Amino acid sequence: MRIVLDAMGSDNYPTPDVAGAVLAAREWGDDIIILVGREDAIRQELAKHDTASLKLEIVHAPEVIEMDDEPAWAARVKKNSSMHVGMSLVRDGQADAYVTAGNTGGVLAVATLHTLRRIRGVKRPAQTAILPLPAGRVVALDIGANADCRPEYLLQFAQMGDIYARAVLGCSSPRIALLSNGEEPGKGSTLVKEASKLLADSGLNFIGNVEPKEAIAGQADVVVTDGFTGNVFIKTLEATAKMLTGLIRDEIKASPLTAVGGLLAKPAFGRVARRVNPSEVGGGPLLGINGVVIVGHGRSDAYAIKNAIGQARKAVEGGVVNAIRDGLPPQQDDEESA
Amino acid sequence: MRIVLDAMGSDNYPTPDVAGAVLAAREWGDDIIILVGREDAIRQELAKHDTASLKLEIVHAPEVIEMDDEPAWAARVKKNSSMHVGMSLVRDGQADAYVTAGNTGGVLAVATLHTLRRIRGVKRPAQTAILPLPAGRVVALDIGANADCRPEYLLQFAQMGDIYARAVLGCSSPRIALLSNGEEPGKGSTLVKEASKLLADSGLNFIGNVEPKEAIAGQADVVVTDGFTGNVFIKTLEATAKMLTGLIRDEIKASPLTAVGGLLAKPAFGRVARRVNPSEVGGGPLLGINGVVIVGHGRSDAYAIKNAIGQARKAVEGGVVNAIRDGLPPQQDDEESA
Repeated sequence: MRIVLDAMGSDNYPTPDVAGAVLAAREWGDDIIILVGREDAIRQELAKHDTASLKLEIVHAPEVIEMDDEPAWAARVKKNSSMHVGMSLVRDGQADAYVTAGNTGGVLAVATLHTLRRIRGVKRPAQTAILPLPAGRVVALDIGANADCRPEYLLQFAQMGDIYARAVLGCSSPRIALLSNGEEPGKGSTLVKEASKLLADSGLNFIGNVEPKEAIAGQADVVVTDGFTGNVFIKTLEATAKMLTGLIRDEIKASPLTAVGGLLAKPAFGRVARRVNPSEVGGGPLLGINGVVIVGHGRSDAYAIKNAIGQARKAVEGGVVNAIRDGLPPQQDDEESA
Repeated sequence: MRIVLDAMGSDNYPTPDVAGAVLAAREWGDDIIILVGREDAIRQELAKHDTASLKLEIVHAPEVIEMDDEPAWAARVKKNSSMHVGMSLVRDGQADAYVTAGNTGGVLAVATLHTLRRIRGVKRPAQTAILPLPAGRVVALDIGANADCRPEYLLQFAQMGDIYARAVLGCSSPRIALLSNGEEPGKGSTLVKEASKLLADSGLNFIGNVEPKEAIAGQADVVVTDGFTGNVFIKTLEATAKMLTGLIRDEIKASPLTAVGGLLAKPAFGRVARRVNPSEVGGGPLLGINGVVIVGHGRSDAYAIKNAIGQARKAVEGGVVNAIRDGLPPQQDDEESA
């Protein structure tokens, strides 16, 4: 397998990105990791690692889409960015997948408007998260690609999430739910109410609406929502976990006795982190485009980058892109332009 | 002060409700707590407590709006519910505030359509949460009264939240923010983008859009959002905190050494709980109606109920209802019917 890693993706590029690529090349020795970005910067980082016998390649891309770049503008103007060059390799069959921890809006714009483009029939691609929860992995989409959605988009997100959960997570009949402010069918925004009707008639294993409580308890395999709500949902999850763990750390350190207790309990905190740490997953796929694209968190460290590459491997092995091409029900409407 | 407590509110009514009223009557000995609900059930609960010298009164209401009742139906049909009777006492000047841990949709319907009604000029009342966060109290609204919102509603939520934060929390110039999926002005749903323009021209201390991370870090005093997103936001906050504390407890108990550490660290966990436990706040006001109405969590225990009564006292003392009546900018549009 040949996997492109955007070396200029994360907040602290290229250090964690290149280090993650090295970890991945070491773990999956048969695969080739193609580092895309500024060649001199990549070589400088690679020199810090023992890369003997690792299958690492470099493809130069002179421009970088930065985190604070306006996505549509950057995608249009920075045609030689690591995103353009990297996704073009996938489009042209020279690589199997593209992985980045970069500007998510930039990824979306470069993918849909300039390189891989949407799968025929897909109204809107969806950024997908694989949430690590105590009950297991939960697929959530859309978490940010589409701030304004129509009910038909949510139906397609559900269909793509269903295909992904079957192909990659091995669910035989994924439980699909709509994220809402109440479980009763009468609850929800107009969007949720209309999408709920479409899902009930979709042939999917639609279990109805769930509140965040049920979603976090893992009562559904695929949680469907618009990109605005989904983004608030996962960012609130992350921010609450960070706030609470910081508060616990501070209060444990606040007295000598509790500090000793904290030291003794440390292995338990380690086990907690391994069960719910987003770095264990690394990234989630942008579904609905002609190629495997995995987007990780800007704050990714090397371990998270390595795991994002692992997600790309799973999506390629599961044949997710072809499964969506073949599996999406035919559209009655004409395809809209993005 | 005379405060009505809905004795039939919480999931386990009337036990925690009546016990909370007893705690409140003990703490604020000058105030009168009026328990509204089924008289026999209330008397039976009161018999479990030492109520000598406490200023507790009972007003009988034969019907109960249950948690799973459809709100608009129940508000129309159960005219003798504890909600109708309780809020009518406030409307008729026989009490200063109404407190309930009951069906929030029911409270909204009984308040706006059948008893207290909206303050003139208020387009939509907003259910408000006072979030206990490490950085302090943060006002969030709407958290569930209006699943579908227009930009003008969000502007009014901001104005009401500003008035509340001044009157009750003592903020001299509350920092107002819109909850969004990104801080940049270009980010957000169409609703957020349009509301953002209205807020920028409002004369309020509008600091822009915040992500959940900034909201949870207390970077704004008032976080404004539509009722669907706001509901998902606070429920995700609650559910994540519950998931994480449960996971930490389980992992600490999983080995003898970490269990000892957990015992030693216990006071720290107690301090954490006191800093971020919603029961410390008890409930939040339904803003925009002609009277103080505080809505608490269905899972409230006696302590939370007592603190919800405390919130009612603060809202009455702060003169929130009159401040909204006097402080809302005149409306150019005609008042819409709810």
